[in-house]
Amino acid sequence: MLEYVTDPDDPRLTDYTRLRDVELRKSLEAERGLFLAEGEKVIRRAIGAGYPIRSVLTTRRWLAPLEDVLGDATVYVVSDEIMSGIAGFQVHRGALASMERLPLPGVETLLKRGGRRMLVLEDLVDHSNVGAIFRSAAALGVDGIILSPRCADPLYRRAVKVSMGAVFSIPYARMDDWFDGLAQLREAGCQTLALTPDQTAAPIDEVKAAGRVALLLGAEGDGLSSHWLEEADQAVCIPMSAEAMAAGVDSLNVVAAAAIACHGLMRSSR
Amino acid sequence: MLEYVTDPDDPRLTDYTRLRDVELRKSLEAERGLFLAEGEKVIRRAIGAGYPIRSVLTTRRWLAPLEDVLGDATVYVVSDEIMSGIAGFQVHRGALASMERLPLPGVETLLKRGGRRMLVLEDLVDHSNVGAIFRSAAALGVDGIILSPRCADPLYRRAVKVSMGAVFSIPYARMDDWFDGLAQLREAGCQTLALTPDQTAAPIDEVKAAGRVALLLGAEGDGLSSHWLEEADQAVCIPMSAEAMAAGVDSLNVVAAAAIACHGLMRSSR
Repeated sequence: MLEYVTDPDDPRLTDYTRLRDVELRKSLEAERGLFLAEGEKVIRRAIGAGYPIRSVLTTRRWLAPLEDVLGDATVYVVSDEIMSGIAGFQVHRGALASMERLPLPGVETLLKRGGRRMLVLEDLVDHSNVGAIFRSAAALGVDGIILSPRCADPLYRRAVKVSMGAVFSIPYARMDDWFDGLAQLREAGCQTLALTPDQTAAPIDEVKAAGRVALLLGAEGDGLSSHWLEEADQAVCIPMSAEAMAAGVDSLNVVAAAAIACHGLMRSSR
Repeated sequence: MLEYVTDPDDPRLTDYTRLRDVELRKSLEAERGLFLAEGEKVIRRAIGAGYPIRSVLTTRRWLAPLEDVLGDATVYVVSDEIMSGIAGFQVHRGALASMERLPLPGVETLLKRGGRRMLVLEDLVDHSNVGAIFRSAAALGVDGIILSPRCADPLYRRAVKVSMGAVFSIPYARMDDWFDGLAQLREAGCQTLALTPDQTAAPIDEVKAAGRVALLLGAEGDGLSSHWLEEADQAVCIPMSAEAMAAGVDSLNVVAAAAIACHGLMRSSR
């Protein structure tokens, strides 16, 4: 159903307005239970994963490539000028979709589904990093992701975009309880591996993962909490060059570390 | 030498003004042969690597932590308000330094220095990606980086910041000639490995790198040019999960891929 909108302040567009204000955006998304998917490919993946469409915002030029998947969704067609004015930036591939969130499974439910390789993200704050890690995890065969209570939201617009839609293909859940979170993983039969820059830990490639594994990744900057580091079954590290350590290059960024660790996990538990 | 500046339009601050305008910034930096280092840690690393300081811009509060390394450099001290006004964003760790570039070595000179593990970046456009790849490369024992003629500048402010200063610790050079660039690498005894998402290529972990290796990484989105793919001695890939490929998750982002590949290089040529 096409609706041509010529007034940028039209109340039909409120899902899309004030995109620039990050804080407001976050609370609006949580409050209304919506999220935004950007670009044809990502919108297709969200629809394919079963998320209901609230509406789509696009321009005349970008309508055609999406028409086959939109069904009877409401589509607001605006001018290029209104589009970039509302979005506050150049929208690549010219479409935004407002989608309804689906209820997340509980951690217990997610763990019961099985899967040998789990990733656990503790308190990551950067949405781009969360998105990039979901993308790597999906490509490298991770079966599910568990978020700490305070970890950044994978359905925040920036995370969705950077993940290229991988946030829709990989099942995830959010812990209610950080303090006892690892106990739940152990009860489900997961060997918990804490990734640390500490070079005295076991090199990730030498870990023999015979059964089910949960790899724990800590926040940007601070890394894993000491509570989780102590609670984990084993600490693992990515070996770094001695020259780098001497020069003070003492860690990898979390996206690089996650990629190497997921790759190692896929090798060791093939 | 401290100079208190109270007028944001003071001509002494021109190195720092108009930070917001990316295009202008780029041309100014190239033209004047300067670059900007942000934050205490990164400024220390730039000074430690021998880059001459033109000046430092900071506030009263952030002056003390840097005082020991500034020597007789000119330091412009401004109010918090002027600082954030000029920088156009919240400056973390409150200091910017304008530094002079040093002449880059030629590719031939860089290759003559030796080093078994080289990385070659073809036409990357995103400064954050270039910075993150330098950071991973430094941590994972890459000996030098060669940039294609059009690859984004590692000394652009965003790249410097994301690299955490690794752009100062790892030697790099820029090719004059893209078309014959790989021939020069081969003449220097490098086995050239082209990283591709193509899953029929040799898995990176199975490559036996007996001698000197140059790993080629392509641009975001398009990957390596077909010319370089054909010219390279061997195509290598990072194995991906069959489920992911079926679901259309068909590649890793370049930072994740670079991290896995550098890690693999370090393992195979230890």
